Amino acid sequence: MTDTRSKSLAYAHQHREQFLEELKALIRIPSVSTDPNHYDDVRETAEWLAQKLRNLGAENATIFSTPLHPVVFAEIKTDPAAPTILIYGHYDVQPDAPVELWNTPPFEPHTREENLFARGATDMKGQIIAGLAAIESIIQSDRLPVNLKFLYEGEEEIGSPSIQAFLEEHKDLLQSDICLNLDAGMIASSIPTITYALRGISYFEIRVKGPAADLHSGLFGGVVHNPAQVLAEVIAGMHDDQGRITLPGFYDNVRPLSEEQRRQLSRMPQNEAYYLAQTGAPALRGEAGYTLIEQNSARPTLDVNGFLSGFTGEGAKTVIPSKAMAKVSMRIVPNQTPESVYQSLKQYLERNMPDTVTWELIRMTGGLPAYCDPEMPATQAMKSALKSVFGTEPVLKQEGASIPIVTEMQQILGIDSVLSGFALPEDNMHAPNEKLHLPTWFKGIDAVIEFFYNFVS
Amino acid sequence: MTDTRSKSLAYAHQHREQFLEELKALIRIPSVSTDPNHYDDVRETAEWLAQKLRNLGAENATIFSTPLHPVVFAEIKTDPAAPTILIYGHYDVQPDAPVELWNTPPFEPHTREENLFARGATDMKGQIIAGLAAIESIIQSDRLPVNLKFLYEGEEEIGSPSIQAFLEEHKDLLQSDICLNLDAGMIASSIPTITYALRGISYFEIRVKGPAADLHSGLFGGVVHNPAQVLAEVIAGMHDDQGRITLPGFYDNVRPLSEEQRRQLSRMPQNEAYYLAQTGAPALRGEAGYTLIEQNSARPTLDVNGFLSGFTGEGAKTVIPSKAMAKVSMRIVPNQTPESVYQSLKQYLERNMPDTVTWELIRMTGGLPAYCDPEMPATQAMKSALKSVFGTEPVLKQEGASIPIVTEMQQILGIDSVLSGFALPEDNMHAPNEKLHLPTWFKGIDAVIEFFYNFVS
Repeated sequence: MTDTRSKSLAYAHQHREQFLEELKALIRIPSVSTDPNHYDDVRETAEWLAQKLRNLGAENATIFSTPLHPVVFAEIKTDPAAPTILIYGHYDVQPDAPVELWNTPPFEPHTREENLFARGATDMKGQIIAGLAAIESIIQSDRLPVNLKFLYEGEEEIGSPSIQAFLEEHKDLLQSDICLNLDAGMIASSIPTITYALRGISYFEIRVKGPAADLHSGLFGGVVHNPAQVLAEVIAGMHDDQGRITLPGFYDNVRPLSEEQRRQLSRMPQNEAYYLAQTGAPALRGEAGYTLIEQNSARPTLDVNGFLSGFTGEGAKTVIPSKAMAKVSMRIVPNQTPESVYQSLKQYLERNMPDTVTWELIRMTGGLPAYCDPEMPATQAMKSALKSVFGTEPVLKQEGASIPIVTEMQQILGIDSVLSGFALPEDNMHAPNEKLHLPTWFKGIDAVIEFFYNFVS
Repeated sequence: MTDTRSKSLAYAHQHREQFLEELKALIRIPSVSTDPNHYDDVRETAEWLAQKLRNLGAENATIFSTPLHPVVFAEIKTDPAAPTILIYGHYDVQPDAPVELWNTPPFEPHTREENLFARGATDMKGQIIAGLAAIESIIQSDRLPVNLKFLYEGEEEIGSPSIQAFLEEHKDLLQSDICLNLDAGMIASSIPTITYALRGISYFEIRVKGPAADLHSGLFGGVVHNPAQVLAEVIAGMHDDQGRITLPGFYDNVRPLSEEQRRQLSRMPQNEAYYLAQTGAPALRGEAGYTLIEQNSARPTLDVNGFLSGFTGEGAKTVIPSKAMAKVSMRIVPNQTPESVYQSLKQYLERNMPDTVTWELIRMTGGLPAYCDPEMPATQAMKSALKSVFGTEPVLKQEGASIPIVTEMQQILGIDSVLSGFALPEDNMHAPNEKLHLPTWFKGIDAVIEFFYNFVS
């Protein structure tokens, strides 16, 4: 460890109380992006961050307006020859409802044992402050080895409606070598984690129409093909008895898992007991030939998200429904695309829908999967940083859900992300009594310091 | 034709105007049983009928109160040695909504060309008056060859909530040899019709539960068996590719169709074009090996009446639903029972539900099918009556829907029914511009006269 690096770490260790106070100040502004009553709080949070960045020496810290909540941008320039890291975060938080389930007021942070309880403590104001604390520690002890750009949005918890347009409009301003995104978290407090692949999504509505109107099942039962039954038959055929998806060509673009990737995934702690406890399902069911964690994160899936047909109220109504509707979506993996699986689904329906109904396939939301090569230098830098701070080799994981900003950074800016963070599964994210585990958080600050040094060495 | 019989017919022909005026008077009382605002009108209609029966010489015409609308009962005793016919009818009518679609006011009868337009004209005030006109014609010309009992209810259009208790309470009073029920109608104005079998029903709700709560499809997609998919798979398996129902033992109790029964059904006019036009379905689908009319009336069926799972609103929500529900019902035929098909469904689900879900099968309404032997004397009497009046051999048909009163008469009173009538498919029953085809109605009066004579000869 170089001398300056240890000085920076020492600064961080000495100023933990100060960083914690800063985090508390940030938490006290209730930046609930869903709630129009908190509109001004969201803006105040943006201003707090811009001021904080100015205090750190950032140039042109700017609050950009969007149709809804502002984006904060700033730069800390060090050396034109050094690489530039774009630090992404979101400063908005989930609502606090149901507020009666909180043990202490959601926007008044309380420390109990090793945890700080408050809305936004872990998602992700704590992660933002961890990054800023690491930067301050280096600036106060040394010279920053990298150039920094900051991008903090205020709409992540409502699906980031403005971010895509913002990235497109400010492409040049945002140009960087890599993005550091600490919104991903750890799989356990003892296991640091880097996420290098994310599933995308392709979402559809299938509408089936049989008779022109609902029919009396006594008067017409026996001669018409019930549309709810047709849709059930078509959906039933989308999986085989091995849990494989039967849509033509569906797996053609799937990037096979390497042995190393499977080894990494095998280190994930989620076993059958975990999934049974988390889901409450009586038994699990996935694609044959893959482990649970592979099924859940690295393999594409197809789910019925909703199904509606006919009479669904209390009691008995003897109708043959005129129509049936299902929402069906796929979690897709590199290198599938929303378009490729749309073609597969369309072909499947063309081949399998009977002539007793008319049907429509409606494309709804779609998002590409993301893949950031785990061998790239920034990921290696984070890997070493996490290992030295936590004493454990980090797990390189794939994530079953989507993080659209990672894909957008790739698509619009051409920037891969290092996706990590220090939120824990037990931190009650999005739920009452959200918390931040302070010992993990302090290690997190150290790890970000190490990451900056590693990235240039 | 005996002399008295022709006298009775002549009386009927001479008094058509009078019968029509009586029908109009009955129609003008808007006996809408669904509508509390017409409560008094329903009672007034009952009183009108009781008075009419007294005028015909009925003894003890009585208006029995029920929890809602009254039942009219009366007797005309002729000869203790003669058989007794119970004449069933309902004097309530459907609502007139949407009233703006009527060409003339619904409760002010108008004659246009050969039709009388009004609510209740064909369903079934016209049928009630046809019966009474026939009886008056005989009484005024001859001596009634049978004893008569009358049972007119005022709740048929709301599902006859009081009739079962009434039959049970007045079992002795209602005791008769046969019931004449003119609520069934003709398949075409040229084809008189007798219905001798009705399908019953057995209605269920199937509930499937997988995860304890809705899950995020990104976080858990791949390891849980989606309950909507499970229910779709189970429902898809309930029919084979020949349209046969696969539930174990489902067909065991089905009374096979005789050659004569199939020949009779083959005379029904409904062909593929008819069903396509009536249903608006792009193509038909039924059980292989049976004709359309057999599939539709004489064979048991299974329909999904409703299916609900997960998110069914506008837009895209990426949930794995916790549960799925389907309403499934079967139209059952002689000698199936609601209980026998319940056992079949239960066994099917026990064999086919995967261990990835828990499930419940809930029994809802059930009704036995009805079968009144077409060879019985009363049916033969009606057959000859219809043939002599209409000049065509009547079709002996089976009906796909249920008429609960027929089953209840069998179950509670032990009385079979002769089920016929003079309503036509084009009479807009339950719809705006309901009408009665007067030439058919006049023939109907004659046919009922002939029926009474035939029954004792």
